[in-house]
Amino acid sequence: MRSFKFIAESSSNGVIERDFTVGEVSGVLWSPASGADRAPLVLMGHGGGNHKKHPAMAGRAELLVTGCGFHVACIDAPGHGDRPRTAHDEQEIAELFRARAAGEPEGPIVVRYNAHLAELAVPEWQATLDALTELPEIGADGPVGYFGVNMGTAIGVPLVAADPRITAAVFGQHWPDVLAEKARQITIPIEYDMQWDDEHIPREAGLALFDAFASKEKTLHANAGRHKELPRFEAASAVRFFARHLGRAATVPA
Amino acid sequence: MRSFKFIAESSSNGVIERDFTVGEVSGVLWSPASGADRAPLVLMGHGGGNHKKHPAMAGRAELLVTGCGFHVACIDAPGHGDRPRTAHDEQEIAELFRARAAGEPEGPIVVRYNAHLAELAVPEWQATLDALTELPEIGADGPVGYFGVNMGTAIGVPLVAADPRITAAVFGQHWPDVLAEKARQITIPIEYDMQWDDEHIPREAGLALFDAFASKEKTLHANAGRHKELPRFEAASAVRFFARHLGRAATVPA
Repeated sequence: MRSFKFIAESSSNGVIERDFTVGEVSGVLWSPASGADRAPLVLMGHGGGNHKKHPAMAGRAELLVTGCGFHVACIDAPGHGDRPRTAHDEQEIAELFRARAAGEPEGPIVVRYNAHLAELAVPEWQATLDALTELPEIGADGPVGYFGVNMGTAIGVPLVAADPRITAAVFGQHWPDVLAEKARQITIPIEYDMQWDDEHIPREAGLALFDAFASKEKTLHANAGRHKELPRFEAASAVRFFARHLGRAATVPA
Repeated sequence: MRSFKFIAESSSNGVIERDFTVGEVSGVLWSPASGADRAPLVLMGHGGGNHKKHPAMAGRAELLVTGCGFHVACIDAPGHGDRPRTAHDEQEIAELFRARAAGEPEGPIVVRYNAHLAELAVPEWQATLDALTELPEIGADGPVGYFGVNMGTAIGVPLVAADPRITAAVFGQHWPDVLAEKARQITIPIEYDMQWDDEHIPREAGLALFDAFASKEKTLHANAGRHKELPRFEAASAVRFFARHLGRAATVPA
């Protein structure tokens, strides 16, 4: 097992934030300040170009911790946040910016680059989960959720397909090309977010990835709007989804 | 205006239930027992073959009244509940049962019969709304929602297209054939429920009706499962949707 250690701790608004490392991987664990009672864990995957403490991550973590009493963990993806970029990372990012500037479709580059990052990230997440479930306040038997859209879905779908410890997941906003095959192996409850007028991901592509999940319980949330306009109330919806499936009450805004 | 009168009143679990008539139309108004403060009104349309006090209606009303403090009204559709069936009603219902028994598609009969009922029901709903907004605990200026799936959508879509007093609506589970044209006139916020594996309404038909709404804010909730398996948590979701759009806090289960 890769070595796990906490390297910093702070606290605000009822949430304890502990930075940690698992081998080379930098992560953060948010927990209720109110006590060390055993509680379910939600893993969060951040979006491409972001990092573990991006405001979207911190905001969702606060809803999950203060609304449900969950522990919430996020790790930096390879080449993101506190982690170094390789020459290959730089090359793919440059290619993405070039395509974007030229008005070419981003999909083929994002799909290929995210698939590469997922291959590296899945074992990193599994090592992180090994370590976190040894903490007494989480434990090895408790339910675990996964929450990540965009690149968080590109990494999360193969992770969930590979790891039976994860029992409920919220995904969204990705292409089916690489992921549909893994999605067909997934049977846990799923909530899936897509944007009805996504300028990057064709509507049929979003619907096809949702369709691929083998889960008996799955819900698609499709909102009018463009790629970056995912409504904020979907974060609260995800929190309630985890409350239902990980066995906690939820106190979050409507 | 058709004559409005309350004809019965009872109370349980924090909800006052008052039966009323508007002309020939039988209805029910559920209100918070806690007081007569002015509060928003949600109109509920029941499903085909059901009636204003069907358990699905009473259950949703209880969530809306006790969770948000709303007033909630439901009227029997023509030929339903306390209202007489015409020879034409009997004929269409027999034709529906015949098709069902023969394993033929229900869609063409349901679409045609519901469109007929909607023509009768829209002016009935408008007369009901005229009367209810004269009550001091509702008032003429407050926001009004509409909540109805199945036949409740067949009646609700033309009603919402015709009546600007309704400012937010939850619809679902119908065909686009007759309704898409009306949906294209609707711009208020919409939540739309469909079943991903509906054996009566083809997936493309459900998606086409959702797509037709001109609303800038609209959300599709598509759940795995057959026509009658709409998950119960979608009722709570609808309540939260009305809380957001009619300006109230919500206390409902996740």
